[in-house]
Amino acid sequence: MKNYKGFLIDLDGTVYRGTEKIEEAITFVKELERRNLPYLFLTNNSTKHPSKVSETLEDMGVPSTPEHVFTTSMATAKYVSERHPGANVYPIGEEGLITAIEDEGLNIVETGADFVVMGLDRAITYEKLAGGALNIRNGASFIATNGDVALPTERGFLPGAGSLISVLSVTTGVNPKFIGKPESIIVEQALEVLGTSKEDTLMVGDNYHTDILAGLNAGIDSLLVHTGVTTKEHLKAIDVKPTYSIETLAEWVFGQD
Amino acid sequence: MKNYKGFLIDLDGTVYRGTEKIEEAITFVKELERRNLPYLFLTNNSTKHPSKVSETLEDMGVPSTPEHVFTTSMATAKYVSERHPGANVYPIGEEGLITAIEDEGLNIVETGADFVVMGLDRAITYEKLAGGALNIRNGASFIATNGDVALPTERGFLPGAGSLISVLSVTTGVNPKFIGKPESIIVEQALEVLGTSKEDTLMVGDNYHTDILAGLNAGIDSLLVHTGVTTKEHLKAIDVKPTYSIETLAEWVFGQD
Repeated sequence: MKNYKGFLIDLDGTVYRGTEKIEEAITFVKELERRNLPYLFLTNNSTKHPSKVSETLEDMGVPSTPEHVFTTSMATAKYVSERHPGANVYPIGEEGLITAIEDEGLNIVETGADFVVMGLDRAITYEKLAGGALNIRNGASFIATNGDVALPTERGFLPGAGSLISVLSVTTGVNPKFIGKPESIIVEQALEVLGTSKEDTLMVGDNYHTDILAGLNAGIDSLLVHTGVTTKEHLKAIDVKPTYSIETLAEWVFGQD
Repeated sequence: MKNYKGFLIDLDGTVYRGTEKIEEAITFVKELERRNLPYLFLTNNSTKHPSKVSETLEDMGVPSTPEHVFTTSMATAKYVSERHPGANVYPIGEEGLITAIEDEGLNIVETGADFVVMGLDRAITYEKLAGGALNIRNGASFIATNGDVALPTERGFLPGAGSLISVLSVTTGVNPKFIGKPESIIVEQALEVLGTSKEDTLMVGDNYHTDILAGLNAGIDSLLVHTGVTTKEHLKAIDVKPTYSIETLAEWVFGQD
């Protein structure tokens, strides 16, 4: 196992499962902290502000500050801002998306948007969707935080961002540019924040189809940990493997300090 | 032009355009009434009760009673009821769909649905969609009033039933059974109500891709009238033609009384 200098770490299924913490992952993150190895939690959850995510992690005993959290909303706002600083944006999403857009100095508008930016919005209304459709038909670029079609909850699988986003793609005929995992964009944005090179960074996650594919798409090494979605059996049927796969993060062998 | 004994007539683009009436169509319907030829207005608008649709028509001077209106919500409720009388239904839709389901004696439930029935709902909420997704994942059949992806309004094209419905199909991976035009089901249901045979009935409409295809799919003759969506130019590029195509309904030649 190579001596990586930076770590991108998925959250749900990797550090915790819903409200249950994964002890091996916490020990792993503590070891990163002890070794002064930079890490960033990389999440497709677009709804929360990084400070909220960090609070939850701290409550679980995971060493974390808001600066350790990089959400797909932040990646999305950064992507838009890099292309068009101060752009007019019509957002559909929750607090995490709205604050990310504001933090990037983008301008929230009702009409005449340069970009329609959409993520999961559990306060969705027809009027919000109508505004998005009209702005896209009037030429706004269509950007989506992530394509996850289902949201695992205690009640079962509820509609995810990708399914709500399909309203706008189906009605306008315009497919969005997706930013979150498995796209490479969120990884590239995260590397800029983390400050490590592709060669020296490892993507860690439990879901082959989001975390590992994001690593593969961005051209960085990846570590699949079987504490969440993708089981050993699933992995057998997949051709392009992650760089490493282990049962829990307790199996990860760090190099010499 | 054959002496048809029954007429299925589209509304928007055929009898009126938005709030503007089409005089030639009104004269045509009056002639049907004078000749005692049965007719039924066949609409993919799932949101209104037939009495509301009929009121609007009467205000425009179109001879109409609620019994002259057959909405895709009525066709959908009838379809469900024929397969499973008194079935448990989880509906997502507006007044027209809810009343149609009640009128068929179906049982509206929150959980344990046999059918999830969805149409256009401009009061859509995440919670409604979540309930639909959970019921489908628990085995409910998924039925949709119509697949129209866009809704023409004074503000422009807004999300139509088909785009909202995509939330549930994308998140569950289950495609709905569509009932409205261009499917044959709504036509077959309408023929039962009208009481005429396929051979003796004409489908009249302005939209090739809904009205005329519905006629073709159901195996009945069709009349395309160029007062709405499909222009003469559009029609040239299409291989399978309607039985007749005319500029306005003033050109329709009735047979001898």
